[in-house]
Amino acid sequence: MANKNNLLLLFEHPNEPVFLSKGKKPTVFDVPDSFLTDRYRPISNEVQTRAGENVEQRIPVREISVPDLRIPMSLGRNENFSLFIPRHRRIAGRLIDIFMNMRSVEDLQSVAVYARDRVNPVLFNYALSVALLHRPDTQNLDLPAFSQMFPERFVDSQVFRQLREESFVVSSGSRMPIVIPRDYTASDLDPEHRLWYFREDMGINLHHWHWHLVYPFEAADRSIVAKDRRGELFYYMHEQIIARYNMERFSNNLARVQPFNNLRDPITEGYFPKMDSLVASRAWPPRFDNTRLGDLNREADQINLEIGDLERWRDRILEAIHQKFVVNETGQRIELDEATGIDTLGNMIEASILSPNSSFYGDLHNNGHIFISYAHDINSKHLESFGVMGDSSTAMRDPVFYRWHAYIDRIFQEHKSRLSAYTEPQLNYSGISITGIQVATNGGQPNVLSTFWQQSDLNLSRGLDFVPRGNVFARFTHLQHLPFTYTINVQNDSGAMRFGYVRIFIAPKNDERGQPMQLREQRLMMVELDKFAAQLNPGPNTLRRRSTESSVTIPFERTFRNLDANRPADNTPEGLEFNFCGCGWPQNMLIPKGLPEGLPCDLFIMVSNYENDRIDQQLTGRCSDAASYCGVKDRLYPDRRSMGYPFDRVPRTGAERLANFLTPNMSIVDVTIRHENRTVQRQN
Amino acid sequence: MANKNNLLLLFEHPNEPVFLSKGKKPTVFDVPDSFLTDRYRPISNEVQTRAGENVEQRIPVREISVPDLRIPMSLGRNENFSLFIPRHRRIAGRLIDIFMNMRSVEDLQSVAVYARDRVNPVLFNYALSVALLHRPDTQNLDLPAFSQMFPERFVDSQVFRQLREESFVVSSGSRMPIVIPRDYTASDLDPEHRLWYFREDMGINLHHWHWHLVYPFEAADRSIVAKDRRGELFYYMHEQIIARYNMERFSNNLARVQPFNNLRDPITEGYFPKMDSLVASRAWPPRFDNTRLGDLNREADQINLEIGDLERWRDRILEAIHQKFVVNETGQRIELDEATGIDTLGNMIEASILSPNSSFYGDLHNNGHIFISYAHDINSKHLESFGVMGDSSTAMRDPVFYRWHAYIDRIFQEHKSRLSAYTEPQLNYSGISITGIQVATNGGQPNVLSTFWQQSDLNLSRGLDFVPRGNVFARFTHLQHLPFTYTINVQNDSGAMRFGYVRIFIAPKNDERGQPMQLREQRLMMVELDKFAAQLNPGPNTLRRRSTESSVTIPFERTFRNLDANRPADNTPEGLEFNFCGCGWPQNMLIPKGLPEGLPCDLFIMVSNYENDRIDQQLTGRCSDAASYCGVKDRLYPDRRSMGYPFDRVPRTGAERLANFLTPNMSIVDVTIRHENRTVQRQN
Repeated sequence: MANKNNLLLLFEHPNEPVFLSKGKKPTVFDVPDSFLTDRYRPISNEVQTRAGENVEQRIPVREISVPDLRIPMSLGRNENFSLFIPRHRRIAGRLIDIFMNMRSVEDLQSVAVYARDRVNPVLFNYALSVALLHRPDTQNLDLPAFSQMFPERFVDSQVFRQLREESFVVSSGSRMPIVIPRDYTASDLDPEHRLWYFREDMGINLHHWHWHLVYPFEAADRSIVAKDRRGELFYYMHEQIIARYNMERFSNNLARVQPFNNLRDPITEGYFPKMDSLVASRAWPPRFDNTRLGDLNREADQINLEIGDLERWRDRILEAIHQKFVVNETGQRIELDEATGIDTLGNMIEASILSPNSSFYGDLHNNGHIFISYAHDINSKHLESFGVMGDSSTAMRDPVFYRWHAYIDRIFQEHKSRLSAYTEPQLNYSGISITGIQVATNGGQPNVLSTFWQQSDLNLSRGLDFVPRGNVFARFTHLQHLPFTYTINVQNDSGAMRFGYVRIFIAPKNDERGQPMQLREQRLMMVELDKFAAQLNPGPNTLRRRSTESSVTIPFERTFRNLDANRPADNTPEGLEFNFCGCGWPQNMLIPKGLPEGLPCDLFIMVSNYENDRIDQQLTGRCSDAASYCGVKDRLYPDRRSMGYPFDRVPRTGAERLANFLTPNMSIVDVTIRHENRTVQRQN
Repeated sequence: MANKNNLLLLFEHPNEPVFLSKGKKPTVFDVPDSFLTDRYRPISNEVQTRAGENVEQRIPVREISVPDLRIPMSLGRNENFSLFIPRHRRIAGRLIDIFMNMRSVEDLQSVAVYARDRVNPVLFNYALSVALLHRPDTQNLDLPAFSQMFPERFVDSQVFRQLREESFVVSSGSRMPIVIPRDYTASDLDPEHRLWYFREDMGINLHHWHWHLVYPFEAADRSIVAKDRRGELFYYMHEQIIARYNMERFSNNLARVQPFNNLRDPITEGYFPKMDSLVASRAWPPRFDNTRLGDLNREADQINLEIGDLERWRDRILEAIHQKFVVNETGQRIELDEATGIDTLGNMIEASILSPNSSFYGDLHNNGHIFISYAHDINSKHLESFGVMGDSSTAMRDPVFYRWHAYIDRIFQEHKSRLSAYTEPQLNYSGISITGIQVATNGGQPNVLSTFWQQSDLNLSRGLDFVPRGNVFARFTHLQHLPFTYTINVQNDSGAMRFGYVRIFIAPKNDERGQPMQLREQRLMMVELDKFAAQLNPGPNTLRRRSTESSVTIPFERTFRNLDANRPADNTPEGLEFNFCGCGWPQNMLIPKGLPEGLPCDLFIMVSNYENDRIDQQLTGRCSDAASYCGVKDRLYPDRRSMGYPFDRVPRTGAERLANFLTPNMSIVDVTIRHENRTVQRQN
């Protein structure tokens, strides 16, 4: 019987022919001659013998009658695969079906071996990943990290020449990490480049890729899409990205990001990704400064849309928001109410297949990505593929991602700003009051947070093709902060034990002019840091919470799926959920960079009534520790409140400033984020 | 004593460390530890031992005190080197000096080995090439072809992944050629793409690179620049490129190229080279459709110029032409006369260091290349290097090359059109008349030429880095034609033996509207096919000349410097001159493609009086067989007439059509060029 773990080896060295050796313990698949491609079939004996030298394990591959792969093979091996492109989604759906329908692991292995050298490598990775996650006989496999199989989507192209040199010249034991330069995509002449560490952070891009992997907007099986509050989560996760990005901009003396609201304006910000697609053997195309969008007419991609289409969709969406209802496909009204309006809008604007009327409200957000990603070659005249905005693993590198999503968020806020403000009774938790907050790093000054640079190593050997085997590391620089602890004093005067839901946010105190912010502005910059339930005994309580416990982040090791360290065993419930757990904001980016002289912030804490907020469900083993932005697999979103509560609506009259907004169960403290321009090496 | 031939091995695998094996007979340099770079010095024993396995030859490298390389090393290893950039020229000059000044071949070998892993690889190739050509003790070495050391400048980036796969997976004896796709840079939606086979022809690009290598516009040693009529040759060689390009455009139902005469207009034609620089590990940047030039302010490149500077230089050049004199640096007038005016203008417009007043007339042509090549990143904000227009080995791929040179040519024609027309007595050769012309392919219809596609293989193994050794071939498709023979009947009624200079041109009969051309237009499309001296006995003479003998072309083998076939031995005079001989229009592009239904052309032949035209000099062993566009090394241009004669001036009054222009020593014949869309494999 075939060992299902061997299937994971098929992800390695994605551009190499399948019969070359793989794995830590050198392993080859014994591929039937008839499975080889035309190039290798006539010399099967020679190439398979060469590949089999010095291997420790051979995996037999059964020769079966292979299903029709013409549709999956209709996407070229050298093309760039993107889920934003409907044709690519249909192709992927067909390949997933084929993998799902194989009767046994052994047959799945055969068809996967056969398909691997024939279909597009990124498509292969995606379809096999989805199948392994959903087949009952393979569900508990741990997929290798996307960043390790396709490192070229995350790393400067120049690093690969060096990795290849190191692998070719130096024997495995003597290899040194290759340092990825910090400043390779632009110069300081470009103010936008100050944000490189955020936009090009591997963890942030992996989070975004994971989010869209676990919340696909289309699938043959509707239940894969129809997750609890997924439309609202689309809104909230991206709203938080914009809030975080703006706080980073303030940390770099830049004003808030300008929404890209006029689709016919030139896009001021150019972006040159300086990355190669190893699959396509082409560079990711750049966008020059001041490039304009154009009507798309790309026959090969089956994309034929005008800018006018986007504008019409936007206008209809705004009309729905201002009328407070949408019209579904059968002409019925669906109210945009306080409870579900945002969820409906999320599905409609993204759009997912849950959109109530996609032929009328269109597909605004996805097509914004497509229009921007093809701005350099609107009609495929130059045979160019999409830019980084065309893929969820690369889009967040581009400054325009934030301009586009700031606009998408503005549309959502048109809805949110029309909801009634929360009243004091709605916000208050009778009998519960916060009497003190302190935030401190270990041994540091109270209420001062501290950021710096850190260098970490990542083994990229499994994503390299046609190089001698053995580990080879890239060393990259990322933002980091000293871990800190919240100490919260809560007075329970209710006379009984209570449960509170502790909600922690941070926002800059001042706007880009240095003026204290109005709450109606500041609420849009409120960054969620944590949310947790706490038991409140009668009288004074002191709650202590560590920054590493945050409900928005996952640990560094999990972001990078370091298979050698700190990971749960395959047969534990934690192991079962490991893939879903890849979704989560990277811990190293929990707080913004701050300024050398300190960025003055309001740290806000609210204790709401957990009895009203809680969802009764079993979360053990569900990897729910980054639920704020990612939800929990196969479970309800673990908070009954609107996402972003209490800042998702405009403040009530009289609460012009954050200080006036506070009810007794809330409190704020002045926190300063200080950045030190020093680099430390991560200890493994 | 060191063997100077070993120096040639230093050109191979330019991005690999110097101690790795090289050559057909596997060879390593035994590099002193102190010569290794910081990365390899601590593990010298390990890496040199590994590299030395299975080698057949070891070359000792003497440890010497190495000269100061700080200036050559100031250009980064990963940067793109270009002779168009003054800073790069200065850096190259310093390295050439260092190589020139080494006392012996052995010391040169030492410093070259030391420098190879420290300076930019393209800079190293250029500086060592120049030094080997000029040092008395290395002059007779044959440099390897640039296209084989840096194939990525000539070939689709996708081919390299395949070459790497073939080298890694398949043993040397079983490898198959990798086919370079014909249509990879654009689609047929782009009318300009019809010219791909011309713009992206390897031979044409190699010719252009060679031409600028043998006619540098700057050198510390002025005699290297001050070659006979080099300014005029700059004008003429490029004028012929435009004439040929326009004829190819007519062969593709396209109108003549529009000169890029308004520098502030957007450049309609975008270009996406789809090539990687393996040195820079970056793609060659594209230019989107409708990109505009901008003022350049690139500090790292020390380039700070306005579009206005180019316009002022152009206006001063035109003022000089219209006033018929230029003003040199000391304020003296230099007449722009019939004999030397064009040469002065050529040096002034290019500009070379021979320009009479470069601070006044500037550097128009070179800076056109620079402005265009940086249009995507005018101020280095995005840390981008130059596009293909920034290098002579890649510039001719880009449609804008022809628009720019059409404009440069228009400026030259402002001068030429002001010279007196040639009179009939000036043109005639008394007593000599042409009585008949026929052109025919072997066994073909008379006066019909035939073109088709051919596939040829090129070994790229020496330009690949970090792959197992052994030949690996790329198969590329290029235009080809059936060889043909001119049969020319010349009547000599002078009563004595005479010598004639036979000048053969071809031009389309009709313009882009299908109307017969006026000679004042048609003369600008006259493409030189051949020029040769012939003995004319009294009475009738029949001259036969094969197309392969053309004075503009070099054979296919020489274009590609196929080191294994048809090349002269090192110790023959032909061998001595082999490098210079790399300059020459590729034989496969001698005639334009034509049309399936036939492109109607005028084939023009003139027999002028060789006694008036000849230059008395020894040409044996001088590789003068492509002299029309390339001249002859260290010799005068072998024709006393103005280049392009008799079509370099506007026709005399009354000669509105070519037929009216003819004197008895001239004749024309209708020739049709037919293209068959079939592909044949080249026989080696």
